[in-house]
Amino acid sequence: MGNSKYSIGIDLGTESARTVLVDVLTGEEVATSVYNYQNGVIDRALPDGKTQLEPDWALQNPADYIEALKTTIPALLGESDVNPRDVIGLGTDFTACTMMPIDKNGTPLCMLDRCKSNPHAWVKLWKHHAAQPEADRINQVARERGEAFLARYGGKISSEWFFAKTLQMLNEAPEIYEACDKLIEAADWIVLQLTGEERRNLCTAGYKAMWDKRAGYPSREYFRALHPRLENVVDEKLSRDIYPMGTKVGGITKRMAQLTGLSEGTAVCVGNVDAHVAVPATTVTEPGKMVMIMGTSICHMLLGREQKIVEGMCGVVEDGILPGYFGFEAGQSGGGDIYAWFIRNAVPGEYSAEAGRRDIDLHTLLAEKASRLKPGESGLLALDWWNGNRSVLVDADLSGCLLGCTLNTKAEEIYRALIEATAYGTRKIIKAFEEADVAVDELYACGGLPEKNPLVMQIFADVTGREIKLAASAQTSALGSAMFGAVAAGSENGGYDDIVSAAQNMARLKEKTYHPIAENQRVYEKLFAEYEKLHDYFGRGENDVMKRLKRIRAAVAGGIKK
Amino acid sequence: MGNSKYSIGIDLGTESARTVLVDVLTGEEVATSVYNYQNGVIDRALPDGKTQLEPDWALQNPADYIEALKTTIPALLGESDVNPRDVIGLGTDFTACTMMPIDKNGTPLCMLDRCKSNPHAWVKLWKHHAAQPEADRINQVARERGEAFLARYGGKISSEWFFAKTLQMLNEAPEIYEACDKLIEAADWIVLQLTGEERRNLCTAGYKAMWDKRAGYPSREYFRALHPRLENVVDEKLSRDIYPMGTKVGGITKRMAQLTGLSEGTAVCVGNVDAHVAVPATTVTEPGKMVMIMGTSICHMLLGREQKIVEGMCGVVEDGILPGYFGFEAGQSGGGDIYAWFIRNAVPGEYSAEAGRRDIDLHTLLAEKASRLKPGESGLLALDWWNGNRSVLVDADLSGCLLGCTLNTKAEEIYRALIEATAYGTRKIIKAFEEADVAVDELYACGGLPEKNPLVMQIFADVTGREIKLAASAQTSALGSAMFGAVAAGSENGGYDDIVSAAQNMARLKEKTYHPIAENQRVYEKLFAEYEKLHDYFGRGENDVMKRLKRIRAAVAGGIKK
Repeated sequence: MGNSKYSIGIDLGTESARTVLVDVLTGEEVATSVYNYQNGVIDRALPDGKTQLEPDWALQNPADYIEALKTTIPALLGESDVNPRDVIGLGTDFTACTMMPIDKNGTPLCMLDRCKSNPHAWVKLWKHHAAQPEADRINQVARERGEAFLARYGGKISSEWFFAKTLQMLNEAPEIYEACDKLIEAADWIVLQLTGEERRNLCTAGYKAMWDKRAGYPSREYFRALHPRLENVVDEKLSRDIYPMGTKVGGITKRMAQLTGLSEGTAVCVGNVDAHVAVPATTVTEPGKMVMIMGTSICHMLLGREQKIVEGMCGVVEDGILPGYFGFEAGQSGGGDIYAWFIRNAVPGEYSAEAGRRDIDLHTLLAEKASRLKPGESGLLALDWWNGNRSVLVDADLSGCLLGCTLNTKAEEIYRALIEATAYGTRKIIKAFEEADVAVDELYACGGLPEKNPLVMQIFADVTGREIKLAASAQTSALGSAMFGAVAAGSENGGYDDIVSAAQNMARLKEKTYHPIAENQRVYEKLFAEYEKLHDYFGRGENDVMKRLKRIRAAVAGGIKK
Repeated sequence: MGNSKYSIGIDLGTESARTVLVDVLTGEEVATSVYNYQNGVIDRALPDGKTQLEPDWALQNPADYIEALKTTIPALLGESDVNPRDVIGLGTDFTACTMMPIDKNGTPLCMLDRCKSNPHAWVKLWKHHAAQPEADRINQVARERGEAFLARYGGKISSEWFFAKTLQMLNEAPEIYEACDKLIEAADWIVLQLTGEERRNLCTAGYKAMWDKRAGYPSREYFRALHPRLENVVDEKLSRDIYPMGTKVGGITKRMAQLTGLSEGTAVCVGNVDAHVAVPATTVTEPGKMVMIMGTSICHMLLGREQKIVEGMCGVVEDGILPGYFGFEAGQSGGGDIYAWFIRNAVPGEYSAEAGRRDIDLHTLLAEKASRLKPGESGLLALDWWNGNRSVLVDADLSGCLLGCTLNTKAEEIYRALIEATAYGTRKIIKAFEEADVAVDELYACGGLPEKNPLVMQIFADVTGREIKLAASAQTSALGSAMFGAVAAGSENGGYDDIVSAAQNMARLKEKTYHPIAENQRVYEKLFAEYEKLHDYFGRGENDVMKRLKRIRAAVAGGIKK
């Protein structure tokens, strides 16, 4: 143990942060600590309990991020008895685009008394979906001007991204926009807190803020066309200095050292995104191997040697996942979130009673009952749009649909139909890559779902018709961040010079894999054809009922959108 | 009390029978008794517990009907202390088409040891939906031959009706078809049990067996084209003697008098149907006033002076509701059934806990929460086809659909959306009548839902844009049967000579009515337009996904239909 070196990875997620302490040589996860955010997702009212939020809002409290550092890092060090001096590096990853306004001290405006009752002063979480009108405008102006960047994002900028959220702030709370010194990704803010240095990472710049290694940000003219006040948004509120993944930003500050128990000066890596750091942590460092990060939502990550235009992909960014490759990202904005919605909102009391008697949770009970059903047996079909559609339709205003209900429909049948729907969504994404000539030869999975729900994995294998290999780590993103922490430290300090070497030594797969079952595949072929038909009918403009229902809802709520 | 005369009405329903003892002069319901069928709806396995049923089957046990007579009539007499000699008449009504095979003694084949393990020996309940292939054939052959009767049934014969169920028996269990002496509506069977006389009623003959006062049954040629063995089905298994409503069949037999405590010879009226007897019991005896019988399903009854062809109506039968008028029937195969499905299968445990703490039932809790929502606020829209669609699409293979779900969707929002969907279904039916030039000037409601669920009634008023008046009686069908019992007795015995006189004296409305709220109506106009669009898309062949899902389900279940 005397010679071992360690790296810390911190994965700041939607409801919680997970921190791991990893042996740099072997990848062994020596200790893990989880912190559940006190404020969780703020989607009904601000923490003051008074300020109500409109539909589709989703905020976070940045105090929860600091609390996560303060809680988990000392827990790791205490539990493992590792000497802080043997911790050579620290990496972080975040959800994205998760962004906030800060003042010139780096303090989020929501922490200032004068701003804190304005919802726009808070962190807009990735799944904040209230900026759709702004996204529509961003897309419309880009199309009118023939902006080249659009194609890199599957032809559509998402309402989840940086400038949609920025423009919503400018439209609805210009005083907050003016009051802030900077607008910053939480991924970069946490690094700023750790090191005192503002260094913006390539990953969120590329995937969420339309930045490109060759072309930079969209032009001032484009931003001016969007909104006069945005002309100089990049220089006024962001930065043009963008740092590639694995860059060492600096060392842990004295204050942060005191807060966490780490040594002052411990190397800190530039910020990164949860889905992206998971790729090398799932052993994937070359093209053709799609990594699915399966948690509340599902991200699909793929490396390619060339830039290709894939329908509805979230983005293709040069060096965006690993240096030297084009990194493709696609995704589904609902996954485990949808199953969790179902468990919370639609499982009858007698099931809760049974789960209680047997001392298992409802997911386990439902999965057990649902796994006894054959594909097609329930007669149900769902569209997995409870949280909108990211790929391939890029439309947050779509909504979920369940079809085929009868008076005999049972809860476990609906649960299975929802899982199947998310698997169809993934298959639709794979199909889009293949149609754009980007190979998807193998599937890899990591995240919470593969750990917890074998039924989900078998259905994904059956629906996609592909074997699925699994990351060995239960905390793949945190492990990936620790790997990047080791890269930031560098080989001269016992770390690595590049992420590929780190992956070779620190990342592993499980022995268990999921193989498609031929009999199930045959039925799912038919059901997927039905899914596609509904997908196109509701998603491609033939019947925009979902959008109209959302407009009626907004009008009824009295919050008529600009 | 010494001079009062009484009539008994027995309403034999889906899950239970309700019996009332009514003062013939005033319509006062002196006593009520309910019997819940021991076997309820048999839809998974026969009472032997061994014989599994295929999807879409729904049977009843005729022993439950006899048990209902044996239990409720003595209860009424005991409770009210009325002398059986003062009971001048008895009327019955039934669900329909609810039919069974009997031997020459009138014994249902399911009561015979040699037949009882064959599902086809049992009573096929109205909502038995497994005869769709047979209904398809009935319609196809009728269209090919240009049969005039089709138009009287909205262009389509339902799988719920007599000859679809008959043909299914012949296809799947010819030995039962051959073994039976007669096929008979439960409505006529119960009268046979009471009086020893087989007298077939005009109502089920007209609405469920394609009989017409002028044209009689379909021709032998038509039946032969359907199936060679059916050529003489009417003469072999039914009867051409059809008796109008209110006809006295005979008197209570000695055995039945012993069983029930009634006097031997008490006048018994010819059989009738629950929805039809409810019309005069809701005070309606003239055209323009639509009566909605709202229970597990919803029936829409309307009188007219002329025969008109209305899309998807269940039927127009001369004298079918009241003598001298054309009786129009339309309906929705799901109503309270759908809400009950939701309560049983999709309400989370915490709601059950709250209902338990507050000592209210789940319907009451959900209605309370749902009534706080504004129309359109949930963003949800449903198609009310959990039990197929009766009018206007006449298609049992359609299924339920819920659209607009988000991660914030709550149980009470879905509950309200399901109620709204059934109201849209009713509005669609009203629209079909109006388009065929049959006036719907006023709405009247009776049945379980108006009694129990004011939210349902308000939503129906808002969606249809019409005031709704309510029958005073909580047991409108049973009251209607008692009224027909009084007609069977005749004025010479203290009863009435016709049903209009009986209605004038015995039927009443509640003071409370439901008025549409203009603000709600405006939103529902928009939502109904969306409902109609989906209704036509899924219901009129543009996307037959619901049918294909049912076919896939049937194939998976291994029960590939003939």
